[in-house]
Amino acid sequence: MSFDRLIDRIVELKNPTVAGLDPLYSYIPDYIKAKYDHIEDPLEAASKAVLEYNCALIDALHDIVPAVKPQAAYYEIYGWYGMKTFAETISYAKQKGMYVIADGKRNDIGSTMGAYAMAHLGEIEIRGQKIEPFGADALTVNGYLGTDGIDPLLPICKEKDKGIFVLVKTSNPSSGELQDKKMYGRPANTVYELMGDMCEKWGEAAPGVKYGYSSVGAVVGATYPEQLAELRQRLPHTFFLVPGYGAQGGGAAGVAKGFDENGLGAIVNSSRAILCAWQKEKCDERDFAGAARREAIRMREDIVSHINLK
Amino acid sequence: MSFDRLIDRIVELKNPTVAGLDPLYSYIPDYIKAKYDHIEDPLEAASKAVLEYNCALIDALHDIVPAVKPQAAYYEIYGWYGMKTFAETISYAKQKGMYVIADGKRNDIGSTMGAYAMAHLGEIEIRGQKIEPFGADALTVNGYLGTDGIDPLLPICKEKDKGIFVLVKTSNPSSGELQDKKMYGRPANTVYELMGDMCEKWGEAAPGVKYGYSSVGAVVGATYPEQLAELRQRLPHTFFLVPGYGAQGGGAAGVAKGFDENGLGAIVNSSRAILCAWQKEKCDERDFAGAARREAIRMREDIVSHINLK
Repeated sequence: MSFDRLIDRIVELKNPTVAGLDPLYSYIPDYIKAKYDHIEDPLEAASKAVLEYNCALIDALHDIVPAVKPQAAYYEIYGWYGMKTFAETISYAKQKGMYVIADGKRNDIGSTMGAYAMAHLGEIEIRGQKIEPFGADALTVNGYLGTDGIDPLLPICKEKDKGIFVLVKTSNPSSGELQDKKMYGRPANTVYELMGDMCEKWGEAAPGVKYGYSSVGAVVGATYPEQLAELRQRLPHTFFLVPGYGAQGGGAAGVAKGFDENGLGAIVNSSRAILCAWQKEKCDERDFAGAARREAIRMREDIVSHINLK
Repeated sequence: MSFDRLIDRIVELKNPTVAGLDPLYSYIPDYIKAKYDHIEDPLEAASKAVLEYNCALIDALHDIVPAVKPQAAYYEIYGWYGMKTFAETISYAKQKGMYVIADGKRNDIGSTMGAYAMAHLGEIEIRGQKIEPFGADALTVNGYLGTDGIDPLLPICKEKDKGIFVLVKTSNPSSGELQDKKMYGRPANTVYELMGDMCEKWGEAAPGVKYGYSSVGAVVGATYPEQLAELRQRLPHTFFLVPGYGAQGGGAAGVAKGFDENGLGAIVNSSRAILCAWQKEKCDERDFAGAARREAIRMREDIVSHINLK
């Protein structure tokens, strides 16, 4: 239940990190792209190159990294072919034992959110057959619409052992424009505090069994370590997805504030640093997956050295 | 520029409404579903049925309704096959002269939002070829992340004559949980007022030429007529997409408050009432598109009778 399955894997691998799969076309080695040159439709060719790139990364990471986070935007840029690769990437990562967080930041009114829940975490019944359209383990969502935009996700989280991460305090420079605003009342909470409190409340519908973290997690950026520390105290049942480590400027000492006294309670994402490790290392492009693995190990050591994970 | 192209068409057809294409499988007549029974994959079969259903609706509506709004969730429930139908629906509606609002409520940090902007409104360059992955005219977005989550959209809006609609005050019952909260300061603005003010500011980067409305619109629900009236006054350069008419309970008299003194400034969406008109009428299922057209005309008359559109 809840995020127990993810946390079990984190404990097993002693690694609270997730590899973001944001496959910009420029990240893919030329020798892979060249294999698909014979395909006429550029979006189809690019999507096939992305799939090969992703699968090689998953092969190189699955025994040391517990989870992957494909970001929907970097598949939608390749049109519907890209969404095919999105689905195939999710399926391949799950086959390899990885936990898959679909990063779509979906949001809508209740009825429509029900459709997103079915699409990404649940199943649809057609002609008496039940099919998982994308079949991720968790989905990122945006809570701007309030409770009835989140409610349809909760029974699926509970019944199908899935999770959601609600945007609370995002990693980008302008996240404070709305999220840091203080609201009238005593105490005068900020927007991100209110959103965090709602995560705790929503999580009551799908509580954690083994580690105390519910199915409703929160996205809290590594780039705001003070808020990360504050929210860790404030939201004891809310598991954190922490973006912004590395390329966006968040360091391991800051990130550590998102963890509890057992070194649990958070998973830290890195996308660009892992995906582009081969470009940074300036190694042979055919060693791109090896470079990704080396960077993933470096990141694991960096973060684990700052927390209390046993 | 901006929403001028959409407003031109609204004026031409004397119809400030948009047909939401939210094709739940249960909305589709059985005779269409049966045509695809021979296809083994249920998601592929359903997606083809959806495409036929959508194209027939577009055929029946394109000469009287200026725009369609396919809602991404109702395509994602059919997996990547559904996203193919999403792309093909957009393309077909554009061929027929309709303005297409992709309702995805996308949101993310700047770099990722750049990918969404390319995916839905812009183009991607692969092997020296520029391709539009989905090619909508406008995209709905969520501004929770602040300015740098919106910025990447603005040059595309300006250069490619596209638009965005930012969620401001949504139509669902719990929208007030966050959006109605008052923030510290003088005057004490609500979250939705702050978001609306940001729309005005963002719109300065892509101002309107002909009607005064910029490329940055706002989603304001028909179910909150007071806020609709207040925001119409407050945001003179922000064009409104108004959901919640009909099935969600918003009436024409309330919706009228979203319009300016020239009967412009807003476009009202109806999804279920148009899509399911054949079920409500209890007409022959083969007349589903005719029923949709009759409902679209009824809606147009209802709304136009309450505003000052010349």
